[in-house]
Amino acid sequence: MSHHKRLEKSGKFTFALLIVASFLSFSQMPVSGQTLADRLGYPPGTKLIIVHADDLGETHAVNAAAIKSLEAGSVNSASMMVPCPWFPEIAEYAKSHPSADFGLHLTVTSERVYYRWSSVAPADKVPSLLDENGYFHHDWEHRQHIQPKEVEVELRAQIERALAMGVHPTHLDSHQYRLIINGKELFDVMLRVAHDYKLPIFVNKDWFADHPYLQQSLGPDDIVLDHTITIEPEVPPEKWADFYISALKNLKPGVTEFVIHPGFDDEELRAATRERSTWGAAWRQRDFDFFNSNQFREILAQENVKLITWRELTDMAARK
Amino acid sequence: MSHHKRLEKSGKFTFALLIVASFLSFSQMPVSGQTLADRLGYPPGTKLIIVHADDLGETHAVNAAAIKSLEAGSVNSASMMVPCPWFPEIAEYAKSHPSADFGLHLTVTSERVYYRWSSVAPADKVPSLLDENGYFHHDWEHRQHIQPKEVEVELRAQIERALAMGVHPTHLDSHQYRLIINGKELFDVMLRVAHDYKLPIFVNKDWFADHPYLQQSLGPDDIVLDHTITIEPEVPPEKWADFYISALKNLKPGVTEFVIHPGFDDEELRAATRERSTWGAAWRQRDFDFFNSNQFREILAQENVKLITWRELTDMAARK
Repeated sequence: MSHHKRLEKSGKFTFALLIVASFLSFSQMPVSGQTLADRLGYPPGTKLIIVHADDLGETHAVNAAAIKSLEAGSVNSASMMVPCPWFPEIAEYAKSHPSADFGLHLTVTSERVYYRWSSVAPADKVPSLLDENGYFHHDWEHRQHIQPKEVEVELRAQIERALAMGVHPTHLDSHQYRLIINGKELFDVMLRVAHDYKLPIFVNKDWFADHPYLQQSLGPDDIVLDHTITIEPEVPPEKWADFYISALKNLKPGVTEFVIHPGFDDEELRAATRERSTWGAAWRQRDFDFFNSNQFREILAQENVKLITWRELTDMAARK
Repeated sequence: MSHHKRLEKSGKFTFALLIVASFLSFSQMPVSGQTLADRLGYPPGTKLIIVHADDLGETHAVNAAAIKSLEAGSVNSASMMVPCPWFPEIAEYAKSHPSADFGLHLTVTSERVYYRWSSVAPADKVPSLLDENGYFHHDWEHRQHIQPKEVEVELRAQIERALAMGVHPTHLDSHQYRLIINGKELFDVMLRVAHDYKLPIFVNKDWFADHPYLQQSLGPDDIVLDHTITIEPEVPPEKWADFYISALKNLKPGVTEFVIHPGFDDEELRAATRERSTWGAAWRQRDFDFFNSNQFREILAQENVKLITWRELTDMAARK
């Protein structure tokens, strides 16, 4: 039954795939039966979700869709890619909306073909992260001899640039889960940097079985979510809403992060993602459409699902 | 009368302005009366133009408009910005269209606000070119203590990346004329690099009066165009076509480069250029529209204006 909590690679381009634990009642987690919600003092059975938009800063179409969703209340948290060209746009928005729940989507790959970005740290300080043309690797083949020390230099450079540009992140997560799924050394780098900046990182208990080093490295003060829901390439476009509705109807108690990818299916995003449809322009438009629909609002109310942000989680955890 | 051949700075954002010599018959050029066309062996009075699209690679909307214009034959030459995120898209196009006339638009500034890029050379090798957040300077205030040696490192890095990605440029030019108008030292860097790679650079005789170091540094084997036409912020949108028609009707003999900025007025380009209208999305759409109009084609035939590319110029010059 471990298929429902794997973080695995799939397809032509190696991607962290996703981990939908919520449909299944069975769990082999070698962890406490208490949910994060229980530990934060919520009544037993409380269902909380973070509706989290990923990849802000990557393109304008993603920034625009995220901002519209945040302002509509259909998304309540998001994270941004500092190395990407549109980061200044979303940084400016974050600066002028200091109560919004923005994290940093720590980025060490440049996974598209026609549109690319590079490190924030000087290229000669992070050579193992860059390809022969100076961009982040398109993919990590057998980890490409990635040097953990260089990852640390790069992560710190990304956080420092964000801070310098007026962004005060509420959390950290890892673009394509690269720093989560590639072994203890890289995860420990991310965790050390997070601790230094006193920021929570997005991890959840469902990942522990396949990646036991996560649990080994995390301490009692680290926030660990209960579940993650994210849509998979196997879901056909016409089943998009069904997938999310089913996930919400079968939601388990505790704190679940919905990792979503809203974007507008326009010229820019179509061009930027045209080499494959996974996480492409139409995919992101479908995510935007579902989470901005009345259907989503209605089911939240119907299933008594509450929204929570990373900022609220951190504040509550600090008071415990 | 020197206003018609100045390269000057203007407005809140310092920009190379434009140089329209064609309307005026008077010239104080301290140079040979022979045009480049004369020297290449064309019959006296021949009028040749390069219709040159600038800023390829900067955004997808600019790439798409340039490709459409090149394929329609309304533009016959273009240059690309290697440090920009959409460079891989246009590099791929250039690689698969090896006879197209693509140069490199050497770039040492990142002049927009919400969408930015940085150096190709490692940041710690070119600190004087970068701002406090690691992007190229938005503008050069009193030249910002730009170090010519660092400019040279960066220009070579841009050319090497282009070559490594399969682009074989036919010429070099300077984004925002930064390397042309900021004194002999920077121009000499550009010229030295161009000579090393055996590439012509875009200069024209009309600039010599205001920037005498150009003529001092150029040698007898360097190609020097006769004139440049480029539209100015002072031209109101409704006079766009009139400006170009008048320029074409009053074209002087010799080789004239039309420096134009086609782009599509879409979400991406509107967002990328929204802080000011100069060289913005609507501006670029107007350029696209005029040069893709029947009006343009007709006036070329009517005025007996011939098209020429940088590749053709170089080949002809080599045979002389």
